[in-house]
Amino acid sequence: MAQQEDLFKKVIAHCKEYGFVFPSSEIYDGLGAVYDYGQLGSELKNNIKRYWWEAMTLLAPNVVGIDSAIFMHPKIWKASGHVDAFNDPLIDNKDSKKRYRADVLIEDHLAKIEEKINKEIAKAAKRFGESFDEEQFRATNARVLEYQKKWDEIHTHFSEVMNATDLEGLRQIILDCEIVCPISGTRNWTEVRQFNLMFATEMGSTADGAMKVYLRPETAQGIFVNFLNVQKTGRMKIPFGIAQIGKAFRNEIVARQFIFRMREFEQMEMQFFVRPGEELKWFDFWKDLRLRWHKALGLGDKKYRFHDHEKLAHYANAATDIEFEMPFGFKEVEGIHSRTDFDLKRHEEFSGKRMQYFDPELGESYVPYVIETSIGVDRMFLSLICGCFEEEELEGGEKRAVLHLPAALAPVKLAILPLVRKDGLDDRAREIYDTLKFDFNCQLDEKDSIGKRYRRQDAIGTPYCVTIDHQTMEDNTVTLRHRDTMQQERVAISDLFSKLNEATSLKSLLRQI
Amino acid sequence: MAQQEDLFKKVIAHCKEYGFVFPSSEIYDGLGAVYDYGQLGSELKNNIKRYWWEAMTLLAPNVVGIDSAIFMHPKIWKASGHVDAFNDPLIDNKDSKKRYRADVLIEDHLAKIEEKINKEIAKAAKRFGESFDEEQFRATNARVLEYQKKWDEIHTHFSEVMNATDLEGLRQIILDCEIVCPISGTRNWTEVRQFNLMFATEMGSTADGAMKVYLRPETAQGIFVNFLNVQKTGRMKIPFGIAQIGKAFRNEIVARQFIFRMREFEQMEMQFFVRPGEELKWFDFWKDLRLRWHKALGLGDKKYRFHDHEKLAHYANAATDIEFEMPFGFKEVEGIHSRTDFDLKRHEEFSGKRMQYFDPELGESYVPYVIETSIGVDRMFLSLICGCFEEEELEGGEKRAVLHLPAALAPVKLAILPLVRKDGLDDRAREIYDTLKFDFNCQLDEKDSIGKRYRRQDAIGTPYCVTIDHQTMEDNTVTLRHRDTMQQERVAISDLFSKLNEATSLKSLLRQI
Repeated sequence: MAQQEDLFKKVIAHCKEYGFVFPSSEIYDGLGAVYDYGQLGSELKNNIKRYWWEAMTLLAPNVVGIDSAIFMHPKIWKASGHVDAFNDPLIDNKDSKKRYRADVLIEDHLAKIEEKINKEIAKAAKRFGESFDEEQFRATNARVLEYQKKWDEIHTHFSEVMNATDLEGLRQIILDCEIVCPISGTRNWTEVRQFNLMFATEMGSTADGAMKVYLRPETAQGIFVNFLNVQKTGRMKIPFGIAQIGKAFRNEIVARQFIFRMREFEQMEMQFFVRPGEELKWFDFWKDLRLRWHKALGLGDKKYRFHDHEKLAHYANAATDIEFEMPFGFKEVEGIHSRTDFDLKRHEEFSGKRMQYFDPELGESYVPYVIETSIGVDRMFLSLICGCFEEEELEGGEKRAVLHLPAALAPVKLAILPLVRKDGLDDRAREIYDTLKFDFNCQLDEKDSIGKRYRRQDAIGTPYCVTIDHQTMEDNTVTLRHRDTMQQERVAISDLFSKLNEATSLKSLLRQI
Repeated sequence: MAQQEDLFKKVIAHCKEYGFVFPSSEIYDGLGAVYDYGQLGSELKNNIKRYWWEAMTLLAPNVVGIDSAIFMHPKIWKASGHVDAFNDPLIDNKDSKKRYRADVLIEDHLAKIEEKINKEIAKAAKRFGESFDEEQFRATNARVLEYQKKWDEIHTHFSEVMNATDLEGLRQIILDCEIVCPISGTRNWTEVRQFNLMFATEMGSTADGAMKVYLRPETAQGIFVNFLNVQKTGRMKIPFGIAQIGKAFRNEIVARQFIFRMREFEQMEMQFFVRPGEELKWFDFWKDLRLRWHKALGLGDKKYRFHDHEKLAHYANAATDIEFEMPFGFKEVEGIHSRTDFDLKRHEEFSGKRMQYFDPELGESYVPYVIETSIGVDRMFLSLICGCFEEEELEGGEKRAVLHLPAALAPVKLAILPLVRKDGLDDRAREIYDTLKFDFNCQLDEKDSIGKRYRRQDAIGTPYCVTIDHQTMEDNTVTLRHRDTMQQERVAISDLFSKLNEATSLKSLLRQI
């Protein structure tokens, strides 16, 4: 575990050092849970977005994109339930004046009990060596049993209280567990209150008051309210989908884990409209296709798993997460939900407009059912960096940090390296750069020893390097070096395009899904 | 003029009808000055953004991209001057309770006087026929001279008052001109007050108060505050640039002209960092390159003009606009500004961090000077649609609406049309679609007569259509139809890729700049 934490810290430092991710407003000492993408991060992020957009609009039947605004009519968030129910339960410590999420205080408390159990197990494992049987130990050790009982009691009660949105009950657990404020160390707590996670602002300026609007907490509603616009103007027939990429905002109180949970983030969401009764068939279709999209990246199939929801939201009749193994455990990167006709019906109710589709084959109108796929661009970015980062020990004891990014998503596809900056090698390198720059993202890198330059390109995930040496001047060949194997081969300059185009193109990646 | 207004109305209706642009939150009766991009609009918008991004990062020396967050530390807007000086002067009518921009009320009043002059001219022109000399008429007609004198007086005074930010003076002009509220018809006006155009919201939730943050009114500051991060981690040497595409927000009181001025909009901005003293050379470089970028689209060179600023902002030492001929006149689509070291120096002052670059060739450190290029995605979108829309009268009197979009930016590159949906023609069409879909955006369009389908594809700007007919089944050729000329030729299916790839690729467009 400590090793994994260590890895995560290294990844964060690596992202900063090489221009992938910077803390936002860093010269002003930062802004909580907001990050900027640097010169390499922005390219990687764009590539992720294109991979998703192209896959969604090309691999499934009838999916088109839209780009709806962040600002929407405030009634939409009433209809969607966000005004009334998109809340976190907060509690203040009266001495430190610090505010906490009540549920997170309890989760942290539960985690501490787990930690104690793990310590007992680790101690015993050390004492008994190879003969240690963890399962038997858990079932018989008095101290562990006591901890486990306590954990179970609190957890059961906590789940009940959360499901009932029982704020007083939440507070009682905090008092019963004798949870103290990490700052003041006291148990001097206020009541628990609901805190809405939407950012609000005022639009316009009329003498009798501006309009309160929200920054969208999800992109999905922009699709629902445009459902009929797209269906009619695009002459779409059910089943069809609408995809969208865009920013969303949540005023998270506890924002953690680098870019995993941010206050400003980007979503890639798709709503697929189907006949009522056919939704579970399409739910399975999208589960399968989305998992294949992830696996085609080649990060290792074992890093993914489905986590089906046991407890469904009131509007869903099936839901699953695709989880990826982050350094801090398996975490949701994508959600796939069968949302029934909940959203469209709510918009019918709140807007007074019919949200029905006339099905020419059935000869009848209905409110379609919806399968949603929802993935966070930033989480996808983080999973890629974490899944591709490696510190390798090389022959001779030297170390290299390498990002094994899928070539089609790598920010730089090809580094062009003149061995020395003289004898015309640098001019030749620039010529090659100018020939290939429109075909794929190239970087001309002239400074430092060739070994140092290889390390730098490994660190930013460049799949290919070509070196221009004195032989190049004679026979128009270059050394082509492969990032992952570090193997080198001699290649004619005129073959570079055809050799690398297939290997680095998004199209070939899409064909593998 | 009426004809131009008519054209603009047609363009707006066309955008809605074919899924380019929808009013935001339309089923909730809309949200002022906010729009959504539909299934074709989102593709066109993405293509515009890619055209800009690739051009900026490939055609100039050392330009890299970033993607900074919309949320930034509030001190940044203090440093940039937006907190104190990004205001509109507002005035309320006490009877209607409506609020107006004081300067716009006066501008509208001036426009009305101009209208009167134009009416006199139009009347006289009608009366005198071909012998009418407008210049002479303006110089001699008593009524026109009187109007013109009034106009000049108000305009001169208005300019002085605006330059001095004299709010009381603004109000006095409104009173002197006897301007009435269009709603109440009265002259019962309040004082003029400054109104800040930034949207504000509250971030976080501490017991002692959340932090007031703003939605960025421009993307440029995200580049300035990351200047050293990018320079250091990217090992950039001056001159170099940082480009960015992203949303910005302004609480416009008078938002007009469809997507020309919106409250939520998207910018493409680049800051180019140069040695002090070399800024005007680079200003000319960017003026030239940016105009060539526009002209390469082939909308007609006469539709563009520079408008050099006579009065410069206090931080600028040169500034020009690239204007495009919209149906409502020549309007700014892009600004190019020599911003000196104003912004970086202000951030030094407000952040307490040094914003200097060590120039290895000069052996000294300095705060770089900056050339900015700033273009609105939405305005660019509007200029393309307006510049490409045409209603053509065909032989036989039929009309077609056609969007002559540059092929590389068109949402759909190729429509694939089986002549009939039987005899295997539809299957063959789908095969061709599946072969080409990864290469460029294709649309399979099977319904309605072939003539109707051609019209539909013309209307959405599809540069090429192929028709699969019975001959196709025999010799594997199709009819290739060209949008602009409507000419048709017989082409082998196996030649389609090579024939269309060059003509529709972004790469070829970039090579023409």
